[in-house]
Amino acid sequence: MRYNVDLEALASIVGASNVSARPVDLEAHSIDESCVEPSLPDAIVWPANTQEIAAILRYAYENEIPVVPWSGGSSLEGNPVPVCGGIILAMYRLKEIINVNEDDLQVTVQPGIVYDALNAHLRRLGLFFPPAPGSSDVATIGGMVANNASGMRAVKYGVTRDYVQSLVVVLADGSVVRLGSDAKKTTSGYDLKSLFVGSEGTLGVTTEITLRLVGMPEAVGVVVASFDELEGATGSVHETIRYGLNPSAIEILDAETVRVTNEQQGLRLAIRPTLFVEFHGTEASVEEQIGYLREICEDNGCASFDQSLSEEEREELWKARKEAHDSIKFSNPGKVMVSGDVCVPISQFGAMFPFVHDLARRLNLKIYAFGHAGDGNMHTETIADRADADEFARAHQATDAIVRHALEVGGTVAGEHGIGRAKRQYLEVEHGPSVALMRRIKQIFDPRGILNPGKIFDD
Amino acid sequence: MRYNVDLEALASIVGASNVSARPVDLEAHSIDESCVEPSLPDAIVWPANTQEIAAILRYAYENEIPVVPWSGGSSLEGNPVPVCGGIILAMYRLKEIINVNEDDLQVTVQPGIVYDALNAHLRRLGLFFPPAPGSSDVATIGGMVANNASGMRAVKYGVTRDYVQSLVVVLADGSVVRLGSDAKKTTSGYDLKSLFVGSEGTLGVTTEITLRLVGMPEAVGVVVASFDELEGATGSVHETIRYGLNPSAIEILDAETVRVTNEQQGLRLAIRPTLFVEFHGTEASVEEQIGYLREICEDNGCASFDQSLSEEEREELWKARKEAHDSIKFSNPGKVMVSGDVCVPISQFGAMFPFVHDLARRLNLKIYAFGHAGDGNMHTETIADRADADEFARAHQATDAIVRHALEVGGTVAGEHGIGRAKRQYLEVEHGPSVALMRRIKQIFDPRGILNPGKIFDD
Repeated sequence: MRYNVDLEALASIVGASNVSARPVDLEAHSIDESCVEPSLPDAIVWPANTQEIAAILRYAYENEIPVVPWSGGSSLEGNPVPVCGGIILAMYRLKEIINVNEDDLQVTVQPGIVYDALNAHLRRLGLFFPPAPGSSDVATIGGMVANNASGMRAVKYGVTRDYVQSLVVVLADGSVVRLGSDAKKTTSGYDLKSLFVGSEGTLGVTTEITLRLVGMPEAVGVVVASFDELEGATGSVHETIRYGLNPSAIEILDAETVRVTNEQQGLRLAIRPTLFVEFHGTEASVEEQIGYLREICEDNGCASFDQSLSEEEREELWKARKEAHDSIKFSNPGKVMVSGDVCVPISQFGAMFPFVHDLARRLNLKIYAFGHAGDGNMHTETIADRADADEFARAHQATDAIVRHALEVGGTVAGEHGIGRAKRQYLEVEHGPSVALMRRIKQIFDPRGILNPGKIFDD
Repeated sequence: MRYNVDLEALASIVGASNVSARPVDLEAHSIDESCVEPSLPDAIVWPANTQEIAAILRYAYENEIPVVPWSGGSSLEGNPVPVCGGIILAMYRLKEIINVNEDDLQVTVQPGIVYDALNAHLRRLGLFFPPAPGSSDVATIGGMVANNASGMRAVKYGVTRDYVQSLVVVLADGSVVRLGSDAKKTTSGYDLKSLFVGSEGTLGVTTEITLRLVGMPEAVGVVVASFDELEGATGSVHETIRYGLNPSAIEILDAETVRVTNEQQGLRLAIRPTLFVEFHGTEASVEEQIGYLREICEDNGCASFDQSLSEEEREELWKARKEAHDSIKFSNPGKVMVSGDVCVPISQFGAMFPFVHDLARRLNLKIYAFGHAGDGNMHTETIADRADADEFARAHQATDAIVRHALEVGGTVAGEHGIGRAKRQYLEVEHGPSVALMRRIKQIFDPRGILNPGKIFDD
């Protein structure tokens, strides 16, 4: 126990049944999906509304106790791991859709609602919230806002920040502000809403989110194309983007990722570098774009091009793609995965694969590479045995080399997973002196350092 | 002269021919296109590069002299008016395209390049930067970044902020930082780039801008539809957006704006509430969408629906729309125009017109209303004689009523023109306590208050 949290004081805010310091609860909130070292919080609270969160923050602020918001726990960089202990603010009870404003194509939700649950509700209205993270069945809207999450559909539709109209936020001292506007555009004052999105719980706690929505497409087309060489796949991606096709998803899997996807998800894909491509639009425009894509893939020597998937096969395909992280995990039992999430300018994306595969050979490691090719966002999973200190160190060495290479070619360390705990050492490498400005902003919002401490910034 | 600017010190940085305190130069930089009271600067400098701007900032910082960046001078809220005197940083010499990165669909420019000039260059490559402000023939990219400008094409393509990948910025003390990333997406640290875009020169001086670009559409379709009643026009706009059509522009003009457009631009439109609509896409999708639009407009009782404009007529039409502000000005010689730029949720847009027209009747004023209907962004121009104190006061009273009404229905005071000087009194009305956070951010970036003082924040 690092902080002497007064459980009765918390119980007086949320009720005794919504506070816990039982080991089983503390352990369940000690680690996310990353390979960051687990760390126990001192207490968990399950608040029901903004007022309760404000009261908890006031208590924590007065007593200088860390507060870490927690929703899906599916993050990959240790973002919500309570590395300094303190209070976990568990958002499970805050999962309501407060208002669907069909007339303005907007929805207002609480932060704990799961992405897939929100879209299941919106589907009946012909609307959806597009970013589509791989962990869509557990990722919450609050977590997506905190991380500026995206996923497969960012290539066409953009990232979470692009859809956030306004936020209700509880500040460190328990005061409540509203950021942004429900008008479609605004130039009124500084863009605090964008500053908040992606701040990973370090500037305040979001308790209400209004999102812009998009109409469901009239038609959807899906293609699976495989290539003997990775160059053919990445070349096709580059031409697809360069020539102005507008896929709603264009995903790449290297041959090893295809192999574990077959193993774990029961697919029967050829074990070759493969693209999963999706188009949204009218029937005519989808057909037209698939025609262009076929030309591009054939020019790049594709070994197969399948556009005849049934509805069921499509669902299996996207589910399998979303589960890539888990497929790799289950095919490597007992091992840890050191994750990478670099994003590079699209012209540099193709060269990332030989770089990574060469690194794997040189360091004698298994590295899976896949990702959101149309955005230049490459995920890597480097397999290591935590008990084998040398291998574990080499896995980190590999991820370090990938990050530094990506930064050298104009990329970013974190395409969509945030900096969290695991990538703190790269913030300054990427941003140089502007990190000092970020630190001063953190200081304004969190003068006592209680908001998700130990994240984003290096100690 | 409010500040004792050392012209020789400035000349030693930029050369004597690039410094001036001649009255003719000072006067040319004392007022923008707004009805804000003119105010003379103490000196003008014309720097050539980032290093010179950094040196000027160091001089100004040491001597606590205001610095106001100036490029097109086409802003409508007094944004670059040197209300506290000081040094005008004129960006005319910084108008180069530094690099076109065709492979990544990006361009890096200096801030002084004019929007139309940039797009004329990009057209040859099949690319463009979409926001399309009305003042596109004089508005510079630097000014657009400062104001987060947009315009006719924001409804489909978004605003300037959505296209800024990265910025080189000179801070108040003359240090230089780079913000953002050239990767298509990033979750690395706080989004300082978005904070900077739209900060109206109050946080630093942008000296290099990398923009994301979009491919030119294969086909363009244009429609002019007129209605006996405004309700028919606004109803059509609402259904167009609600049913998921995706126009690249959907502009509305009330009958009086059509009248002055005819007078000044030589058009022969019927004097009725009118929509100008544009679609970008493939031939098939443009045709399909125009078909849907026709149904919508006919359901809403349109009096005319013309989709057969020649290339030349289309150009005249968009030029006329862009010149609406000037047409109103020239049709009301000797008068001033008090501008409004509210943006409301699209469901509230229709009701804004009767509100404005009723207000005009009650206050015995001429108010023109037009704007970017698909975004809910209404421009109003209220005509007044500056010498007629009562009328001038009523014109401000009308704009005040429009702003407060827009805020009441969930809108924003400034859709695309910024807060500048003229709308400062509404910042707190719109944002409440979060203005205190904005002020503290301003304090971090500009501890001596030298960067475009007297703007955004009320005194």
